Amino acid sequence: MENEFGVLARVAGLFSGRGFNIESLCVAETLDREISSMTIVTTGSDSILEQILKQLNKLVNVIKVTDFQDVEVVSREMVLVKVSADEKTREEILRMVEIFRGRIVDVSLKSYVVEITGNEEKVRAFLNLVKPLGIKELVRTGSVAMMRGERVMRARDRESKGGKDGEGLL
Amino acid sequence: MENEFGVLARVAGLFSGRGFNIESLCVAETLDREISSMTIVTTGSDSILEQILKQLNKLVNVIKVTDFQDVEVVSREMVLVKVSADEKTREEILRMVEIFRGRIVDVSLKSYVVEITGNEEKVRAFLNLVKPLGIKELVRTGSVAMMRGERVMRARDRESKGGKDGEGLL
Repeated sequence: MENEFGVLARVAGLFSGRGFNIESLCVAETLDREISSMTIVTTGSDSILEQILKQLNKLVNVIKVTDFQDVEVVSREMVLVKVSADEKTREEILRMVEIFRGRIVDVSLKSYVVEITGNEEKVRAFLNLVKPLGIKELVRTGSVAMMRGERVMRARDRESKGGKDGEGLL
Repeated sequence: MENEFGVLARVAGLFSGRGFNIESLCVAETLDREISSMTIVTTGSDSILEQILKQLNKLVNVIKVTDFQDVEVVSREMVLVKVSADEKTREEILRMVEIFRGRIVDVSLKSYVVEITGNEEKVRAFLNLVKPLGIKELVRTGSVAMMRGERVMRARDRESKGGKDGEGLL
């Protein structure tokens, strides 16, 4: 989408106005500062998903909409989780972090902040394991996705949809 | 925020209606399925930031707003980047990925998909290094943040702000 004021509001309004679900949403600039990418995780019947795609495609400043349902994708999110850690549990936490290829990104006397990346199942599995030790806080980015292999999602037809030059953001 | 239809639309509308900037935004459920967390990266003068905080606090279904400006935080985002890779450049890419503690999450004959996590500076430094090799595609989650040490952001005063039980999402 073009980086214009109001795009995010229009997308969010489309979902809430029609009662479409948003499980998670990420939006940030791409390498081209005039273009942002937005990743939405949603649920619904085939006909609802079809409607969502159709409606999104109609929105001003939306350049391209890709449905990742039927393509091979890498889909990952990042989670920061603050876990209680004392002398008894530190070793166990470190072991789990290692197994899940996570990272300790902050340490205090009573807690660790762990960064975990992966698909939803992996993240859920990790959280279920550390839950008994005490999760003090959790923040998730929501998933982003990218097609596997050579294929890329290009915003080539940008001009054809019109829209002013990007200056404002979202 | 409570997981209610329309919260995201109200937040996005607040920003776009007043011309406040959104650099990135992530929203996803917490461990409590009725509560989501939203992380917004924004820019503006002190008085604009103050206005944003004030307006966000007034929104229905918003439970708690925390300004991370003046607290010690871990702030990180995740980026997936598809980089051209051939016999000549593969080794160099792998070396850079290792230095930046990234991960190869997909491989094809002509490209790698690399996952990098870190603060904005780290991510930017990595992207600047791989840019000459050919970035085919890029998707960023936008940053999430967590206070360092024992402090946590609690949604304790949830009841006091009212709001129905969460069922719909955002």
